[in-house]
Amino acid sequence: MQITPLGDRVLVKPLDAEEKTKGGIILPDTAKEKPQEGKVVSVGKGKISDDGKLVALEVKAGDKVLYGKYSGTEIKLNGEDHLIVREEDILAIVKD
Amino acid sequence: MQITPLGDRVLVKPLDAEEKTKGGIILPDTAKEKPQEGKVVSVGKGKISDDGKLVALEVKAGDKVLYGKYSGTEIKLNGEDHLIVREEDILAIVKD
Amino acid sequence: MQITPLGDRVLVKPLDAEEKTKGGIILPDTAKEKPQEGKVVSVGKGKISDDGKLVALEVKAGDKVLYGKYSGTEIKLNGEDHLIVREEDILAIVKD
Amino acid sequence: MQITPLGDRVLVKPLDAEEKTKGGIILPDTAKEKPQEGKVVSVGKGKISDDGKLVALEVKAGDKVLYGKYSGTEIKLNGEDHLIVREEDILAIVKD
Amino acid sequence: MQITPLGDRVLVKPLDAEEKTKGGIILPDTAKEKPQEGKVVSVGKGKISDDGKLVALEVKAGDKVLYGKYSGTEIKLNGEDHLIVREEDILAIVKD
Amino acid sequence: MQITPLGDRVLVKPLDAEEKTKGGIILPDTAKEKPQEGKVVSVGKGKISDDGKLVALEVKAGDKVLYGKYSGTEIKLNGEDHLIVREEDILAIVKD
Amino acid sequence: MQITPLGDRVLVKPLDAEEKTKGGIILPDTAKEKPQEGKVVSVGKGKISDDGKLVALEVKAGDKVLYGKYSGTEIKLNGEDHLIVREEDILAIVKD
Repeated sequence: MQITPLGDRVLVKPLDAEEKTKGGIILPDTAKEKPQEGKVVSVGKGKISDDGKLVALEVKAGDKVLYGKYSGTEIKLNGEDHLIVREEDILAIVKD
Repeated sequence: MQITPLGDRVLVKPLDAEEKTKGGIILPDTAKEKPQEGKVVSVGKGKISDDGKLVALEVKAGDKVLYGKYSGTEIKLNGEDHLIVREEDILAIVKD
Repeated sequence: MQITPLGDRVLVKPLDAEEKTKGGIILPDTAKEKPQEGKVVSVGKGKISDDGKLVALEVKAGDKVLYGKYSGTEIKLNGEDHLIVREEDILAIVKD
Repeated sequence: MQITPLGDRVLVKPLDAEEKTKGGIILPDTAKEKPQEGKVVSVGKGKISDDGKLVALEVKAGDKVLYGKYSGTEIKLNGEDHLIVREEDILAIVKD
Repeated sequence: MQITPLGDRVLVKPLDAEEKTKGGIILPDTAKEKPQEGKVVSVGKGKISDDGKLVALEVKAGDKVLYGKYSGTEIKLNGEDHLIVREEDILAIVKD
Repeated sequence: MQITPLGDRVLVKPLDAEEKTKGGIILPDTAKEKPQEGKVVSVGKGKISDDGKLVALEVKAGDKVLYGKYSGTEIKLNGEDHLIVREEDILAIVKD
Repeated sequence: MQITPLGDRVLVKPLDAEEKTKGGIILPDTAKEKPQEGKVVSVGKGKISDDGKLVALEVKAGDKVLYGKYSGTEIKLNGEDHLIVREEDILAIVKD
């Protein structure tokens, strides 16, 4: 089964504690808006700009990303938690 | 009888539990915004961009889609529940 | 007497129960936003897009349409209830 | 004395009961937003679109119009009530 | 001393009762938003449209104008009350 | 040390009572939004318009300006109070 | 490990008291919106303008900047506090 997000949406699989970047990002408990690490599974075609041009997304399948914890819509896919978020809600791409 | 949604609107028929993607998407009870599965029946011509160009929709009749549960307007069509939603409210296209 | 709606507005005559699409659309009592059936009497010239182009309306006089029940402004025309709504508030065109 | 409304504004003289369209429009007491009949006295040059083009108004001096009762700003001109409204607040042009 | 308003702003000197248009505009006490008469002293260069073009103002120094009473920012200039308002808040140009 | 404001921001040094325009602007105590006099120290490159063009600012270093008292962000620079405001919050340029 | 902010976002490392500009900026306790000094670590590709063009950011890695204290999202990177902010929230570039 395949999920193709629409427009500027992105399907993200949250990373488990073990998979998280080593020696890397620790999200403080005090942060108001807590970002979370995840892996991009699939992306939409892009956003339509105000004059009707398609603007491709910056993230692509396989990217490890930081996104706002309370963003998007949760779905269960083959028994695993996933999230559909707008690219707008993705803060950064993480490279090890 | 035929319903042609206007602009960027889409006519969706919610899927019954039996018709839902097998082994597939289970929507968690805890999700704030619960997405639902449905089948696209008919679509509008598209959205008019800010400079007056028509931008065709990404979804088409026959697509199986995920959409926000509380989106759109309910209508009964030939005795069956349907929904008119904006394409904006459709999260993703599902392929088995 | 003739009413020409301005811009993207549309003059609609609500359909009586008898005139409604046969075997067709039944609007559920539970629907939050109840759509209603009506017939388009006359339409405005269209909407001015952000860069000043006129975008003609999709609906035309004679179309049977679904629109949001609480949309628009009621007027009485030759003793009969009518409604002036924006095309934005029209959900779909209905063909028998 | 002459009043030239600015931009997309229109100077309207509300019609007295006697002057109102005969056999015509009766505004129901129950209407949430009550439209009123008036005659356009003078109009602004038009609205500047987002890319700086002037878009002329659809209404012109002499037009009989329907407008929202609570729209605009009241002024007394030579002892008579007038209203300065935006064209946006004019619902339709009425022709007898 | 010279005041050059910025952008689409206009420097207005409110007119005293004696200077007001004769036989002309009387502002009703009941009007929600009371317009006031004033004389334009100086104007800004104009507004930058969305695509970066300068759009000159419609009013010019010397114009007698109607503007919303509660608009703008009051300043005292050489001992006299003045107002800096946006052109947007000017309703109409008055000619005797 | 040099402060270069970003985009459409402007670094302003508020004028002391002695430096203020002589015989000039007195700001009434009753004014809701009190404007203040200051001198422009440095300016940003300008604002990016909706279609990506850079629009230079109207004010330049050395200009004496009027700005809203509660606008912007206070910083202390070499022991003296300064303000970073958006050009939008500057009402007018003052020339003696 | 490398963090690439998305779009118009910027990764900033707040400066310690010792690193702060000498003899320079002291942020008053009374300031409503307290700006803070930081160093830009990495920047996004830029913002997509309304008609789909990429507009590069003004700040670059290595810039010392002033930004709003309550802006952005905190993350811990290799044990040190960092912040992901939008360029919009950066007030100025500081040069010693």
